[in-house]
Amino acid sequence: MNPGESLQRLRERRPLVHQITNYVVMNETANATLALGALPVMAHAREEVEEMVALAGALVLNIGTLSPPWVEAMLLAGSEASERGVPVVLDPVGAGATRYRTETAKRILAEVAVTVLRGNPGEVATLVGVDAEVRGVESIGAGGEAGDLAREAARSLGVVASVTGPVDHVSDGERVVRVANGDPMLATVSGTGCISTAITGCFLAVADSPLDAAVEALVAFGVAGEDAARVANGPGTFHASLYDALAALDPATLGGRARVR
Amino acid sequence: MNPGESLQRLRERRPLVHQITNYVVMNETANATLALGALPVMAHAREEVEEMVALAGALVLNIGTLSPPWVEAMLLAGSEASERGVPVVLDPVGAGATRYRTETAKRILAEVAVTVLRGNPGEVATLVGVDAEVRGVESIGAGGEAGDLAREAARSLGVVASVTGPVDHVSDGERVVRVANGDPMLATVSGTGCISTAITGCFLAVADSPLDAAVEALVAFGVAGEDAARVANGPGTFHASLYDALAALDPATLGGRARVR
Amino acid sequence: MNPGESLQRLRERRPLVHQITNYVVMNETANATLALGALPVMAHAREEVEEMVALAGALVLNIGTLSPPWVEAMLLAGSEASERGVPVVLDPVGAGATRYRTETAKRILAEVAVTVLRGNPGEVATLVGVDAEVRGVESIGAGGEAGDLAREAARSLGVVASVTGPVDHVSDGERVVRVANGDPMLATVSGTGCISTAITGCFLAVADSPLDAAVEALVAFGVAGEDAARVANGPGTFHASLYDALAALDPATLGGRARVR
Repeated sequence: MNPGESLQRLRERRPLVHQITNYVVMNETANATLALGALPVMAHAREEVEEMVALAGALVLNIGTLSPPWVEAMLLAGSEASERGVPVVLDPVGAGATRYRTETAKRILAEVAVTVLRGNPGEVATLVGVDAEVRGVESIGAGGEAGDLAREAARSLGVVASVTGPVDHVSDGERVVRVANGDPMLATVSGTGCISTAITGCFLAVADSPLDAAVEALVAFGVAGEDAARVANGPGTFHASLYDALAALDPATLGGRARVR
Repeated sequence: MNPGESLQRLRERRPLVHQITNYVVMNETANATLALGALPVMAHAREEVEEMVALAGALVLNIGTLSPPWVEAMLLAGSEASERGVPVVLDPVGAGATRYRTETAKRILAEVAVTVLRGNPGEVATLVGVDAEVRGVESIGAGGEAGDLAREAARSLGVVASVTGPVDHVSDGERVVRVANGDPMLATVSGTGCISTAITGCFLAVADSPLDAAVEALVAFGVAGEDAARVANGPGTFHASLYDALAALDPATLGGRARVR
Repeated sequence: MNPGESLQRLRERRPLVHQITNYVVMNETANATLALGALPVMAHAREEVEEMVALAGALVLNIGTLSPPWVEAMLLAGSEASERGVPVVLDPVGAGATRYRTETAKRILAEVAVTVLRGNPGEVATLVGVDAEVRGVESIGAGGEAGDLAREAARSLGVVASVTGPVDHVSDGERVVRVANGDPMLATVSGTGCISTAITGCFLAVADSPLDAAVEALVAFGVAGEDAARVANGPGTFHASLYDALAALDPATLGGRARVR
């Protein structure tokens, strides 16, 4: 785990990060990707997604405003990514809220070699099948429980599970890494979860392992959130400052600011 | 009419506000909803809109970038909302500009139990059938005329009509309430009309009556606009500050700042 | 070439600029259009695009997140614009990256009377058929080469070619105009190319000639970028300040700040 080194590599290589994401956050995830140092591209037509993902260093799938043609595009792009060894991060936005979202997230997990699953505790618990205990809960109080959920998700779904909240828990099924970076202001802007998924995609293109990528992404985004919060007067100026902070992240100091255990 | 109390209730209950809206403003209305204190969710697939609206405290329909699948989703979600007693606010963006928009707005009004219609004078006049006199006019000079339009729309369409402009007029068909909060800067940012509609949805989930909700929403948004204008250097910084101002609205002082008659 | 006079005319006439553009930048191009002084309208349904473009002073086509229904809408609106003499600006986002984008851009150029083609060197070179030499290069070092590309594109495609980069080159096939306004910060925000296309649409509605419109738009946007960069702390605050700067552009001084040759 060395977020500074990965960030340095990201800014040198500038990987293309192909994102099939929701309408609400497209501009935001594109700008976060660019501010961090990678190159975003949004493309969702079945006519081109396979060709586009072949150019990419990572693929981001996000079901936040799904509909059948978009689900089809995600499956096509995801399958092509799987075949080519392009890492894939899935954000199962709203899994558990409607059957369509739950089933689509499960279908993507079944048909695509998802590398990292990035979601909140309720979404991830739904996909693991322990929804009864967790759904509707915004965050799990005890770190141990969220850590168990991340490990269980990683094992049963065959992914690196990145379960985010006030404190994040990332697991590859064996280790559980706890990331405590971030700021409560992040919860006041719509789409910050989706941005953390996009940034996970950026790090997947350059990190040493999927576990490293998921952790480093949460460290980088969390540190940017901390920096943005210091100059913000509310959610609007925080949002603008978040891109400033992502662009200003310093590879030399990032590792020292990581609150990881 | 007590905007402070309703805002307090909104922040305690955090209602889910289901929005089927246009591509241009999705991020903006989601962030305004969140900054105010409610929880936004965007979902437009016919596969899930009925299930989603069943979880919601209000439904927002906005035809700003309509196309057949979206119209179908609005009708499905709207009918389910009507059946369940979930209040619905309709923003007939561009009614009068093209036949497709006019007809779609009329179809939604016919098939859905719309609670509040929130539009500009031209749009509302088109739907009432007095377009010849009003269309193309950005605002109606005489308060009396816009008030008459609101009352007439409320009566003939069976809704609370919220006709916005430099001064807003809201009517349930009997009373006409005039809201003079706001700032000219609001007209310099795209989608502020759509945001006022989303905020009307938020208040519909908690207010004592649809008339109260529509008025309180315009007071809250107008006051936020006044606050944002004080710190802005132009439309971009005004836009960012608008979310700061929505989040900073104080239930204890909001009522006292209402410019309502 | 008189950007100040055109801007003055734009703010007096407030032309409607119909935009069929990508999901990522819709809010941004709408706000840039509005901040500059024109009126944006986004509409993409085949049911209404012809009626909408008939109301417009210019049409903006942008293939950034294309799919078949959107391509169909662009062709319908574009043909209607051609027939009515409404000027059209095309942004061939990603031409050269996938066959679908290249073919769609070529199809629009074949079926629509495109007035201005606004793209980066790689996109324009792809459409001219000299992609081998240019694709993948972010900017062409020698001004002469980019100027040659602009002239060649204008001649072979029958358009005014607006090839943008650190320095922009605009040609009607005879003259080549070099615009050196702008700031490197513009490259740190996603969609600034798309914004320059939308602003080109705004100027097309009022300028004396398509060549003038393309040049004046790049001057205006570049000057706004210079002003925004002076107050920005990074890409997020730069982005917000860009709209402030567009709104603050002064017709009286704009011409004097043009770095045109």
